[in-house]
Amino acid sequence: MHRLDTFPERVENIVQAVAKTRPEPGAALVEWDPPSVGPGEVLIRVAAASICGTDVHIYSWDNWAQSRIKLPQILGHEHAGYVETVGPEVHHVQPGDYVTAETHIYCGRCYLCQTGNAHICRHMEILGVDRDGTFAEYLAVPESVVWKNDPQLAPRVATVMEPFGNAVHVVMKAEVPAKTVVIIGDGPTGLLAAGVARAAGAAAVWTVGLLDYRLQIASQLGADSIVNASGEDPVSTVKRQTDGLGADVVLEMSGADVALPQALEIVRPGGRIIAFGIPSRPLTLNTSDVVFKEVELLGAVGRRIFATWHHSQRFLSQVDVERVITDEFPLSRWQEGMDKVLRREAIKVVLYPGA
Amino acid sequence: MHRLDTFPERVENIVQAVAKTRPEPGAALVEWDPPSVGPGEVLIRVAAASICGTDVHIYSWDNWAQSRIKLPQILGHEHAGYVETVGPEVHHVQPGDYVTAETHIYCGRCYLCQTGNAHICRHMEILGVDRDGTFAEYLAVPESVVWKNDPQLAPRVATVMEPFGNAVHVVMKAEVPAKTVVIIGDGPTGLLAAGVARAAGAAAVWTVGLLDYRLQIASQLGADSIVNASGEDPVSTVKRQTDGLGADVVLEMSGADVALPQALEIVRPGGRIIAFGIPSRPLTLNTSDVVFKEVELLGAVGRRIFATWHHSQRFLSQVDVERVITDEFPLSRWQEGMDKVLRREAIKVVLYPGA
Amino acid sequence: MHRLDTFPERVENIVQAVAKTRPEPGAALVEWDPPSVGPGEVLIRVAAASICGTDVHIYSWDNWAQSRIKLPQILGHEHAGYVETVGPEVHHVQPGDYVTAETHIYCGRCYLCQTGNAHICRHMEILGVDRDGTFAEYLAVPESVVWKNDPQLAPRVATVMEPFGNAVHVVMKAEVPAKTVVIIGDGPTGLLAAGVARAAGAAAVWTVGLLDYRLQIASQLGADSIVNASGEDPVSTVKRQTDGLGADVVLEMSGADVALPQALEIVRPGGRIIAFGIPSRPLTLNTSDVVFKEVELLGAVGRRIFATWHHSQRFLSQVDVERVITDEFPLSRWQEGMDKVLRREAIKVVLYPGA
Amino acid sequence: MHRLDTFPERVENIVQAVAKTRPEPGAALVEWDPPSVGPGEVLIRVAAASICGTDVHIYSWDNWAQSRIKLPQILGHEHAGYVETVGPEVHHVQPGDYVTAETHIYCGRCYLCQTGNAHICRHMEILGVDRDGTFAEYLAVPESVVWKNDPQLAPRVATVMEPFGNAVHVVMKAEVPAKTVVIIGDGPTGLLAAGVARAAGAAAVWTVGLLDYRLQIASQLGADSIVNASGEDPVSTVKRQTDGLGADVVLEMSGADVALPQALEIVRPGGRIIAFGIPSRPLTLNTSDVVFKEVELLGAVGRRIFATWHHSQRFLSQVDVERVITDEFPLSRWQEGMDKVLRREAIKVVLYPGA
Repeated sequence: MHRLDTFPERVENIVQAVAKTRPEPGAALVEWDPPSVGPGEVLIRVAAASICGTDVHIYSWDNWAQSRIKLPQILGHEHAGYVETVGPEVHHVQPGDYVTAETHIYCGRCYLCQTGNAHICRHMEILGVDRDGTFAEYLAVPESVVWKNDPQLAPRVATVMEPFGNAVHVVMKAEVPAKTVVIIGDGPTGLLAAGVARAAGAAAVWTVGLLDYRLQIASQLGADSIVNASGEDPVSTVKRQTDGLGADVVLEMSGADVALPQALEIVRPGGRIIAFGIPSRPLTLNTSDVVFKEVELLGAVGRRIFATWHHSQRFLSQVDVERVITDEFPLSRWQEGMDKVLRREAIKVVLYPGA
Repeated sequence: MHRLDTFPERVENIVQAVAKTRPEPGAALVEWDPPSVGPGEVLIRVAAASICGTDVHIYSWDNWAQSRIKLPQILGHEHAGYVETVGPEVHHVQPGDYVTAETHIYCGRCYLCQTGNAHICRHMEILGVDRDGTFAEYLAVPESVVWKNDPQLAPRVATVMEPFGNAVHVVMKAEVPAKTVVIIGDGPTGLLAAGVARAAGAAAVWTVGLLDYRLQIASQLGADSIVNASGEDPVSTVKRQTDGLGADVVLEMSGADVALPQALEIVRPGGRIIAFGIPSRPLTLNTSDVVFKEVELLGAVGRRIFATWHHSQRFLSQVDVERVITDEFPLSRWQEGMDKVLRREAIKVVLYPGA
Repeated sequence: MHRLDTFPERVENIVQAVAKTRPEPGAALVEWDPPSVGPGEVLIRVAAASICGTDVHIYSWDNWAQSRIKLPQILGHEHAGYVETVGPEVHHVQPGDYVTAETHIYCGRCYLCQTGNAHICRHMEILGVDRDGTFAEYLAVPESVVWKNDPQLAPRVATVMEPFGNAVHVVMKAEVPAKTVVIIGDGPTGLLAAGVARAAGAAAVWTVGLLDYRLQIASQLGADSIVNASGEDPVSTVKRQTDGLGADVVLEMSGADVALPQALEIVRPGGRIIAFGIPSRPLTLNTSDVVFKEVELLGAVGRRIFATWHHSQRFLSQVDVERVITDEFPLSRWQEGMDKVLRREAIKVVLYPGA
Repeated sequence: MHRLDTFPERVENIVQAVAKTRPEPGAALVEWDPPSVGPGEVLIRVAAASICGTDVHIYSWDNWAQSRIKLPQILGHEHAGYVETVGPEVHHVQPGDYVTAETHIYCGRCYLCQTGNAHICRHMEILGVDRDGTFAEYLAVPESVVWKNDPQLAPRVATVMEPFGNAVHVVMKAEVPAKTVVIIGDGPTGLLAAGVARAAGAAAVWTVGLLDYRLQIASQLGADSIVNASGEDPVSTVKRQTDGLGADVVLEMSGADVALPQALEIVRPGGRIIAFGIPSRPLTLNTSDVVFKEVELLGAVGRRIFATWHHSQRFLSQVDVERVITDEFPLSRWQEGMDKVLRREAIKVVLYPGA
């Protein structure tokens, strides 16, 4: 367990952060003013952060990033850390608390927040997208999104609770007990979903991916079958192994353009697809299959706040989350981690600010 | 009420039917051997039948029809009639029973039938598509799909219970109480869905269509607002009228290529789309909206057997089904009815065999 | 519409309130210090309040009241009013806002609050039960429970939105479209539930009660059938009218000791009972019927915060809520209203502080 | 594996069976005419049968048995066997098929059968209760209830698929992934439910019982904690271990009079109780707790036909069903098995007709 036992007397005047400062691919380690902490906000000293696909989109400056991101922007949203100071009007978080913030900052007052859907709030701000991110020594967030971590959980694992929560949200939405479940995607959330689906009662789990070293981890986490789509057609494989019927559930967690059309072929009539991966462009779909097969195609994003966090905590004893952590670097060497992710040689890379 | 009180001594040796006999657009009134009635089957003397979009596809000999239909094929599946004779192994239907057959003939033994999804049976046969249809004086169906009609219901209405059942199935799947509901489509099922949504507790109902005379009927059936999409953008209209949020529920019942993309824009985050209309080709969809908005996109086909029939019967007192019946012809003048449907001058056309 | 257009410069030093001050039946109009307004709280000048069964329990000083209430206690929780002042840390409510407070004050941080069940919060405080109530000129509540009323809604109606919300919550939980629905109870929530069930798509609604003048109101609100249980057995009546099957849904909204056992007999196999009424003592139930009939017996309390408030607002155009308001008094004449309620001569009594 | 490979040329003229013939406690091995096989029926040669609590009720001739059973009555409903002959109108079962019949024989035409609830059919006949049972060499059942067993499954296990199906039905209704689950009952279905709850994704499973040797089996099957209620209060134990909140789910599978009241105390607000055990008499319940805690109390009986059978098959690889089989006897020594069950020294006793 990696736990910091002392807290600095005060926040430094200058903090290090990884930020995109120019409208082009790349990012840079910069010096930055420490975040100010307004009413209802808390300042977190980041103990660990980790690289997610969203960070890669911003780093690569793709179409989505160009349309959404205002520069300069500190990258990163996955993290764990310690509360350093709290602003006025903060009542339930204290300095020293070991926390992770839900990365979707919701307003709490719109129709969606008032009806149990804060995770798709109309006025959402996302860490590392709409406000300063977590690849920094310090982070300011509203108290309302602070989750107190189990002190037994090392920061390197606690920072992964955010993508683990994605996997839990997707699997819980799919209602998997006694179901056959195909997961498309060998990124960190797809791999974790194999473990969650197994823990949550799936009858059989397939993971479809492109990289053997990742598919091995899917097996270790609980997939019964793995399919490397570079050499094998997942549609015909699953159909053959389900007596031609197809799978009860397909979790699309890759964002690949071919994946959702494949999911629609793989799923059995009356089955359910969860769409979590974000394709890079509009897709051409045989939507008449949705109708004739009476498929349920359900989008999933983020995590239910905070139901999914509670669920994640409960699944933690059954899913070996650490298996997806392949690399760790001090924040100052963030570029090495990003490069490994870009080359798909790493799965989850953890960064340590201040290290 | 139109009710026949006498039954012929025996089935004629030659019966009239509307059939497609050649692989090209069109159909013809033909003479036909009366259907044979095997074990477990009943022979229905058709009192009324009605023209559905599926019949139009077959008549027009479009791509779907060319790939699915084996010639010769008697058209039609909507109907009401009287049981003339019953075959061996029939135990619960008697000659003289006033009936309508569910048009999806299910096997009863596949995984889907055994788990409450007989309406998407793996071995489905559909009347007028996979077996002889209802635009004929006589029709043979298995006892297992026979529904006994309320004797108070005229055959002209009873034949419409099948598309009414589509509307009921779609609306029940949408769970509309206290919801804002947009219906795209001014065909018979779309119009009926406006009435069902109103009866089933929707907070507000919009019908989007292209023909004013049909939209007037939507209003009469219960739509609060009508949108003629030829002159008004339904997306901006609904957004404006829902404070920018979008509608809780969108029922896509047109099959138009623009409709599902529009539905995805109209629906609010966390909302539900029911896809019932069949587009003529694969659609290009911003499926990332399904994810980010966490939309539920649910296919709907046919009717639940027989839950939807019970529901339909119960909604009948609240929805004036007859409003969609615009034209009635003897079967011998079927071509006039088909032509009016093709010109979109008719909504629901009822045909009377033997008349 | 009854709307106050001016606001006092400051809160009076002494306010009038109806309070229970002694451990015995009864209550008294007392003078009281105005409520203090702490951080995050707002002060509401009460424009209208109304008498609920809970107030009667406290007034009568029954077993439940004796075990729960700490004296002195201002009665009342139903109300509507205007924000007079706001405390520190209040950000989204302003003086002059026309509001009603949700009467269940939740902590926002317990497991239940964090998982979408704030209305059954572990640390709940209820207005008029655990903290100062609404039968007073002024009321202090946290901003988090403030609901902004439609300005078109008169205070006399807005104060009834709380019990209307109970009815909406009960009916929404029952999922009534196309269902046969029996409501046991002719108190205000039971009567309102008849209107909501009708608006929410029930196929047929029975109201079972004891007082003809109330059952007439049930009819006016939407009940198809009324059963006066003082002269007619509701079990045999409903069974006979449902072909011996029983009703799909039973809403127990009376709290009578006989009601839940009757509900268990009335409900069909596979049907649903919503238990909302609070019996005065433990009941003897044939729970083997719950098993053999596979009944769903669901408790319902309060309102979902704030989903039910949104639903209620939407049902308002379809349910004539005012029909349950039978009497109105200035607060100073509260005793007359209470007496009429105790004699069951009134249904909903509205009180006007400061009038 | 125990599998019979030969079939008799013809059914014997006289068959052995265990029947209750007199209105008093006890039963007897009798000689009996072989069952006749009508249209749509099949004759099963019973390879294994097993003793269930229902058989004990009938043997003991308790109040329920006296009110329900018509003498003479062959006992037993759990079984596995081989189809010997098929009657007319049987189309999908052949002599030699290795089968188990669903013990609830449904009509297929009532409202409940037509709406997906055949397991609570209005005209239900139950094997060993309403028609000749399975503690006999031969058994006649309609083809409609025949389930074809996996040939890899020994008859001793296949006969237990019926109570295993009860456990699966109960657990599936409870929706256990990520939930804390308390099971009250250490009979065969309660023990199997521990295994199913574990396989279906429960976060934690407690089994509450009275006999240590059975609680040990609960542990082996997957319970995380066991509570012997003869020396420990399950309510306070579970409350303490859930931080005072209570359990998300309670499965009442004992039928003990204290169990459902305990379940109501153990379950957390907003939690779910499944009532499966049949108490011997009406219970006194604090139903106001159902209301205030907004509990979902759901009855469960039998198995969904055939969804639960499919689910059971899928859970079989994850639950070691054989652990509940403690005793096996030839049918002729059935009394020894019954005596062990009555003394609670046996859990599941398998009987072999013809052995």
